[in-house]
Amino acid sequence: MSNLPDHLWNGYRAFMTGRYSDERARYRQLAERGQEPHTLVIACCDSRAAPETIFDCGPGELFVVRNVANLVPPYEPDGNYHSTSAAIEFAIQALKIRDILVMGHGRCGGIQAALDPNAKPLSPGDFIGRWISLLKPSAEKIRDSDLLTGGERQTALERISIRSSIANLHSFPNIAALAEKGELRVHGAWFDISSGELWVMDRDSGDFVRPDIET
Amino acid sequence: MSNLPDHLWNGYRAFMTGRYSDERARYRQLAERGQEPHTLVIACCDSRAAPETIFDCGPGELFVVRNVANLVPPYEPDGNYHSTSAAIEFAIQALKIRDILVMGHGRCGGIQAALDPNAKPLSPGDFIGRWISLLKPSAEKIRDSDLLTGGERQTALERISIRSSIANLHSFPNIAALAEKGELRVHGAWFDISSGELWVMDRDSGDFVRPDIET
Amino acid sequence: MSNLPDHLWNGYRAFMTGRYSDERARYRQLAERGQEPHTLVIACCDSRAAPETIFDCGPGELFVVRNVANLVPPYEPDGNYHSTSAAIEFAIQALKIRDILVMGHGRCGGIQAALDPNAKPLSPGDFIGRWISLLKPSAEKIRDSDLLTGGERQTALERISIRSSIANLHSFPNIAALAEKGELRVHGAWFDISSGELWVMDRDSGDFVRPDIET
Amino acid sequence: MSNLPDHLWNGYRAFMTGRYSDERARYRQLAERGQEPHTLVIACCDSRAAPETIFDCGPGELFVVRNVANLVPPYEPDGNYHSTSAAIEFAIQALKIRDILVMGHGRCGGIQAALDPNAKPLSPGDFIGRWISLLKPSAEKIRDSDLLTGGERQTALERISIRSSIANLHSFPNIAALAEKGELRVHGAWFDISSGELWVMDRDSGDFVRPDIET
Repeated sequence: MSNLPDHLWNGYRAFMTGRYSDERARYRQLAERGQEPHTLVIACCDSRAAPETIFDCGPGELFVVRNVANLVPPYEPDGNYHSTSAAIEFAIQALKIRDILVMGHGRCGGIQAALDPNAKPLSPGDFIGRWISLLKPSAEKIRDSDLLTGGERQTALERISIRSSIANLHSFPNIAALAEKGELRVHGAWFDISSGELWVMDRDSGDFVRPDIET
Repeated sequence: MSNLPDHLWNGYRAFMTGRYSDERARYRQLAERGQEPHTLVIACCDSRAAPETIFDCGPGELFVVRNVANLVPPYEPDGNYHSTSAAIEFAIQALKIRDILVMGHGRCGGIQAALDPNAKPLSPGDFIGRWISLLKPSAEKIRDSDLLTGGERQTALERISIRSSIANLHSFPNIAALAEKGELRVHGAWFDISSGELWVMDRDSGDFVRPDIET
Repeated sequence: MSNLPDHLWNGYRAFMTGRYSDERARYRQLAERGQEPHTLVIACCDSRAAPETIFDCGPGELFVVRNVANLVPPYEPDGNYHSTSAAIEFAIQALKIRDILVMGHGRCGGIQAALDPNAKPLSPGDFIGRWISLLKPSAEKIRDSDLLTGGERQTALERISIRSSIANLHSFPNIAALAEKGELRVHGAWFDISSGELWVMDRDSGDFVRPDIET
Repeated sequence: MSNLPDHLWNGYRAFMTGRYSDERARYRQLAERGQEPHTLVIACCDSRAAPETIFDCGPGELFVVRNVANLVPPYEPDGNYHSTSAAIEFAIQALKIRDILVMGHGRCGGIQAALDPNAKPLSPGDFIGRWISLLKPSAEKIRDSDLLTGGERQTALERISIRSSIANLHSFPNIAALAEKGELRVHGAWFDISSGELWVMDRDSGDFVRPDIET
């Protein structure tokens, strides 16, 4: 038995007759010469916010880490398995990528869980609870902000999580050093699933703005 | 300063006038009703192997974890931050996804690193070395297979890593239980960047075959 | 009693009214002038992998040795009967052929026997066991590669047997000398019975690739 | 470098768009179910006498051994590598083939060498001299038959070699036993390259006759 689910297999066939067929030479070249992606994107697993779709990117452009709530843990060289830190290290040290984008999005299930005071472990392993606890101090503060609506609390923590990941990125000595010298740039963005709007973080203030209405 | 790199911003504008414009209603609906992705994909960060591209998927279809070499660590409920295990838990327990695909690909840099006997830490943290050590026993055996060419060793370990991730998925009690009852299916696939071929794992033998030439 | 089995005799009559009738002049010429085949093919006896069929060759084109598992023994001028070495010597020295192709194929029964740890002699003479022992060291190593599936082990040894035959060809002093001077070329290929795909050996790396998808 | 000579590659492409394309289902079935060839053919390497061509056979029909002058050595279970005996053993014991055809042909270079009193080793290994010495006693007698023309001596030894191979086949105990019980049949045939005529051996007398003009 080697059948993929129909929707995957049909999608793959559409890719082969469509995009791959159009970009055959590009794929060949990428295979032979290796990848040189221009940007490392740290994004959420959410099915509605794929970076390649939102940035209309072809093969070879984005090196993409995806985890729940686009989190970057702080620098902890402790010998445990660090999926996200490993990918970041590979992107910066091996691939020499010099633009990093942390992209969050609206209606994020991970953020929702972090804000739910009654959240129970999803399974005895409680992996999501532990993972989301990276945001715990912020989540608790936002949860107590009774002046904000539920929706506002959600958006607020989504953006805080982006700023928190960016701060943790700077706890990596090599990233801090490169950024210090102006040789590496870290960006933040937040995608509104409903409207399709992309809000970009101002690096000085941490605010999220829409460059398209600024211009 | 809130400017994204030009290639990202231009890509985003192409998305807005293209795909988003065509699928506006779909995005609105996905925002309101929440996501119900049909498949959890565990894929590599590699810029040449984005699942949404290869399966020609639109918003809302794939819940995607991406780490270096598409690895799933074994079930270890030890209180550390487990990015991949958390995403898997969320997909199965919260989103009720019942199809999981582990997708590897050719010319994988992580696998290459695992096979390199002289690989040195990429940074003092050695995150990639530690992460890739999940494959260590297999990598050492394959590295010693002097009857295989370098290319054959690379392909062999890429496929072994998929089988290994699938085995580790079954170390999660909830996945094992659902699979046992026939209520959850785990698939494996390997994508050839150069030719665009998708090789699908036979669930009984573990072999990778091409369904398009079987039919 | 001189009757051939019906299928052979009927096949022969189809040949006479078909191909021979079309190529009568060619056969006459080949009879008068002698053969000048362009390629020596060393192939397996398997009924599913006839070189003339796979390369769509007419009379006079291929000088063909066929034995179980397309093996070339090492150069051993010891006075025994060496069927394969004799044919190779005749092709190179008498017919001056300068292209040699070693062609293996999938699902090879000889390779299967070499990998079977419980294989017993097929008859008291144990000719096949002895013949296949030419691959013994490789077969034992591959047999112990428990990370590979049964199918992967089979394919691996099929390809190793081609590389091994090619290495043994170079133990023949005349072949080594001609190859050294660039006056003789040795090729390797592996035929997939199911898909009809031909995988060609890269002479530098020993890898098998598909030229039709490289172009 | 993985390029095959052009004539081979072009031939392969003709096969894929022609025969393979027409018989795809047959190839698939042969791959899955394994081969069940109806006949073992022991033929010469000569490029003008491919059994599949002369008997117009498709994939899966003939299990084919090809060596110089279609010789079968006598049964010698001595631990050396016996290419031809191994193939015969595999055909009879593993594949259960019960029709064997020894096919010789006109203008055979190996027979010519056997008849040449001044033949010198083709290379220091003298593999062909040794191989053809299987026919030595017969060759010497025919060589001395000064009443026969050169052409008659050639044809005579070609047919003697077929009868000799058939005699040697009966030195294999399992073949002798099966033939004795009427469960296995051994046939002889001689192909005239120039005229396309197939002469079939009468099993009682050893004469070669043309069944098509007998009827």
